[in-house]
Amino acid sequence: MSAGTADAAGRPQGRRVAILAGRGEFPLRVASAATAQGANVYVAILSGAADPADYASYDAREYRLGQLGRFLDEVKRREIDEIVMVGALPRPSFGALAPELSTLKYLPHFARAFQGGDDHLLRGVVSFFEGQGLRVLGPADIAPDLVAPVGALGRHKPSAVAREAIATGFNLLAALSPFDMGQAAIVADHRVVAVEAAEGTDAMIERVAGLVQAGRLKLGKGDGVLVKAPKLGQDLRVDMPAIGLDTVTRVAAAGLAGIAVKAGKVLVGDRQRLVTLADASGLFIEGVA
Amino acid sequence: MSAGTADAAGRPQGRRVAILAGRGEFPLRVASAATAQGANVYVAILSGAADPADYASYDAREYRLGQLGRFLDEVKRREIDEIVMVGALPRPSFGALAPELSTLKYLPHFARAFQGGDDHLLRGVVSFFEGQGLRVLGPADIAPDLVAPVGALGRHKPSAVAREAIATGFNLLAALSPFDMGQAAIVADHRVVAVEAAEGTDAMIERVAGLVQAGRLKLGKGDGVLVKAPKLGQDLRVDMPAIGLDTVTRVAAAGLAGIAVKAGKVLVGDRQRLVTLADASGLFIEGVA
Repeated sequence: MSAGTADAAGRPQGRRVAILAGRGEFPLRVASAATAQGANVYVAILSGAADPADYASYDAREYRLGQLGRFLDEVKRREIDEIVMVGALPRPSFGALAPELSTLKYLPHFARAFQGGDDHLLRGVVSFFEGQGLRVLGPADIAPDLVAPVGALGRHKPSAVAREAIATGFNLLAALSPFDMGQAAIVADHRVVAVEAAEGTDAMIERVAGLVQAGRLKLGKGDGVLVKAPKLGQDLRVDMPAIGLDTVTRVAAAGLAGIAVKAGKVLVGDRQRLVTLADASGLFIEGVA
Repeated sequence: MSAGTADAAGRPQGRRVAILAGRGEFPLRVASAATAQGANVYVAILSGAADPADYASYDAREYRLGQLGRFLDEVKRREIDEIVMVGALPRPSFGALAPELSTLKYLPHFARAFQGGDDHLLRGVVSFFEGQGLRVLGPADIAPDLVAPVGALGRHKPSAVAREAIATGFNLLAALSPFDMGQAAIVADHRVVAVEAAEGTDAMIERVAGLVQAGRLKLGKGDGVLVKAPKLGQDLRVDMPAIGLDTVTRVAAAGLAGIAVKAGKVLVGDRQRLVTLADASGLFIEGVA
């Protein structure tokens, strides 16, 4: 790819990418990967989610959600044609939502998008930016090493019983896929022992830890797997499941043998630190094609 | 049906039913219904599960699990041809399992049955008694009023939003049916918020109560339904889901609007007390065809 330098007319060469940056390490890593690829990067730091200090070396500006119109004006002025939304977004305050004048005209679109589940809202956000002539990319389109590859991510590998558990787990997640709910489960002792819904992955892992401690669930050697995958049809550009260091810590504390994720479809964050922790904890992290 | 009286030869008239009685009120109610139908009832009180004092007015004897052979000898001596297994069985102690001489010959059958999940074991128990020439009945075959009828069981009825939640919930349970796991879920706020697996129905209800208390789940008026159904193919003769007074209490405490069960396929126990409590708590209990 061409470098993000300017030509004689002062017009930036290469791709022009806007990164809508939420909380966590992922937006920073996407910004870094895009820059390394020679793209011209503009970071919209989402107020209350991302820390402006993290983006001091970038062409960046902080925006409240209600400043969408102002952000779009800037995107058009810069002739940006690609946008990535990445990072967690805490529940916005009313203050953050309060629309500026330049944002008011877009409200009808979002009023419709809000009338449905999370899936519906995200589809509405994607279609909104597409309607503005922007190409919406996923974080993995820019930084492919953010997602799990096929095979073992560290030095431990699933046992035979764990492989059976992984197969059961992915079959279960496929069956749950038509429902708008968490896409993680724990399989152990030849059965599904926990399914994630509104409580979230962390609470589900801790529930299983409690069952083990209470003697209600016996884990044989190499048994017990957390499986995680996106729903069928989930838009991975704006809604990709993720595991991180805290996931590995919790899974190890629960006494499970490892984690299996859908390869290419689950964010693994800082892969090197994840592998180091998993190796030290005796856990496998397996990407399943 | 004919009355359970004796003829001139002292031989009992009518059906001859053995009830293998576990813990709880259901075995007593089955014994009472069978007696009212004129059947000749013999109760095998499972040691450590049922209380012999409850069966003082019945032809009854206490058995350990290891005394299966002795029980079968008695069943044959009495020319009993129907058997009902009903009531919860606590995890048996090794002492309870220790086989008497008369039981040893049956062990190979159960050794095979134990090599699999709960479903497999129950199928093994049913096939064992069938192999002994006994007809295995379900509690509802003898006492149909133990199970939920179609429609509202009390005076409250599901709202429109609750009806939608019920439909989603039963669709989910059907999708989960191929997996050997709990068959209950909670649907609220237009989505599945909890799925039961190894933790059991009570813990699942309490989890949702926690989400509501923490403000992570908002329940509108008339919203929030516990759905419960057997798995497709579940043998209702030996493994029927149940709701009871404690279920109603927990569902009410969680702030849910009601309970929906598969009509004819979920035990409701003492229907009158259940209805009284549900009515007083403002909950619906709906049997869905």
